[in-house]
Amino acid sequence: MTPIRVLFGDCDPANIVYFPNFYRWFDQATHDLCEAAGYGLVRVRHDLHWVGFPVAEAGARFHRPATINDWLRVETRVVAWQPRRFLLSHRVRRDGELLVDGWQTRFIGIHRADRGGRLAALHIPDVFRAAVDAQMR
Amino acid sequence: MTPIRVLFGDCDPANIVYFPNFYRWFDQATHDLCEAAGYGLVRVRHDLHWVGFPVAEAGARFHRPATINDWLRVETRVVAWQPRRFLLSHRVRRDGELLVDGWQTRFIGIHRADRGGRLAALHIPDVFRAAVDAQMR
Amino acid sequence: MTPIRVLFGDCDPANIVYFPNFYRWFDQATHDLCEAAGYGLVRVRHDLHWVGFPVAEAGARFHRPATINDWLRVETRVVAWQPRRFLLSHRVRRDGELLVDGWQTRFIGIHRADRGGRLAALHIPDVFRAAVDAQMR
Amino acid sequence: MTPIRVLFGDCDPANIVYFPNFYRWFDQATHDLCEAAGYGLVRVRHDLHWVGFPVAEAGARFHRPATINDWLRVETRVVAWQPRRFLLSHRVRRDGELLVDGWQTRFIGIHRADRGGRLAALHIPDVFRAAVDAQMR
Repeated sequence: MTPIRVLFGDCDPANIVYFPNFYRWFDQATHDLCEAAGYGLVRVRHDLHWVGFPVAEAGARFHRPATINDWLRVETRVVAWQPRRFLLSHRVRRDGELLVDGWQTRFIGIHRADRGGRLAALHIPDVFRAAVDAQMR
Repeated sequence: MTPIRVLFGDCDPANIVYFPNFYRWFDQATHDLCEAAGYGLVRVRHDLHWVGFPVAEAGARFHRPATINDWLRVETRVVAWQPRRFLLSHRVRRDGELLVDGWQTRFIGIHRADRGGRLAALHIPDVFRAAVDAQMR
Repeated sequence: MTPIRVLFGDCDPANIVYFPNFYRWFDQATHDLCEAAGYGLVRVRHDLHWVGFPVAEAGARFHRPATINDWLRVETRVVAWQPRRFLLSHRVRRDGELLVDGWQTRFIGIHRADRGGRLAALHIPDVFRAAVDAQMR
Repeated sequence: MTPIRVLFGDCDPANIVYFPNFYRWFDQATHDLCEAAGYGLVRVRHDLHWVGFPVAEAGARFHRPATINDWLRVETRVVAWQPRRFLLSHRVRRDGELLVDGWQTRFIGIHRADRGGRLAALHIPDVFRAAVDAQMR
């Protein structure tokens, strides 16, 4: 669970959160989940030479707006594992009320040295999957 | 068509566009389309007392990354009209190559004075629909 | 003191914090200080009809870079009061080490109804100054 | 001269440009100047192995606010050269009117291999200075 405090600068002239910010927070929540599982970005990039966890597909439904000084909770879970992708659910709540319901398909990004450094998706290691799953129990 | 130049600050440590920025650009492309149709935000907010065009749902598929100094084109179209919502398609291209394929469901936001200023969706006026449709011919 | 965690999306292709983000954090730290003093933005905007605390001047020296997952502390103090302005110091530290040394001159923004809603600086109320000063003891 | 169009998402709940965005635009204007001089970031990073042009110090005076759909011009000049630093002036105008007056001290960032990759300032090459100066005549 990632706590987010809505700042003045996160809001637009309509006085509500400018919606691209929710994607920054989904991103933070994903990184928090991976870091709790022992796959923080510093280790991932420096030790494992992964690029990170790029987004392949993403979607969201915006049910209710959030505004300045709201405290939000982003609840992020992996809801499905594929050989080279994983599907995340992100639910943003304020005092239990569901504000935004998002999902993302991500992969473990690596640079393929044999293809000019082109970004590719690593076959997901079992140890990664097990470590992330263990965080959600 | 909205031209976007990818800036240094739009890119993340993986040296590619940080994906929430694509949502900012979808937003810009939507506002550009509405403005070309005579519904720029200044008029919309000051004269019509609309809040703007909030996003109800959104999704995107990220096919290829973009990077510093790329020139992108966001092609935005309304692909379906509902009584209180409209569905937009956003295609981001670089030299014709499709990088990101996005869509959004938006509505015309108004403050319901009879419900404490709560955000609501206006029944889409025919003149708005006709003006936007005329931009896409 | 405002704690900041540096996120992946805060960093640029050089793998360090993209410097405009420090200004967002100075802003957050200012709002945190004012809120602790009882002048949170919600109250300030809704009850007092202030616009907020616009920045008139700002500066910063960047001594050392910050990077992903760093935990930073922004120490913000009012270092001088003028009739219509206040000068803030913002020091960003990581484990005690000074990374960025910033300052801002801000004012209490109001809309002058007699001048077409133009932004103006309120004479700083003694109760505001006393409340903020009390936070820094 | 860098043209900037103020977008909805650049503005805060006070309906004016959220001030950290000006620093993003100063950054863009600096990169535009360097690129016009033949030192675009792609070449600089890939061919010369420079990190880019990090900011050592920065300041700005905010005279008047900008708002949605404003077209701004950022006029950026190098106003002083030091052996390892250069001082830039950034003036943001709207129809000739000066809105923001900014300055930055930047350097050419390199990674010192002999010091664990630590960021250092390159002695500014004469060809770089001459190429940038030539843009401002």
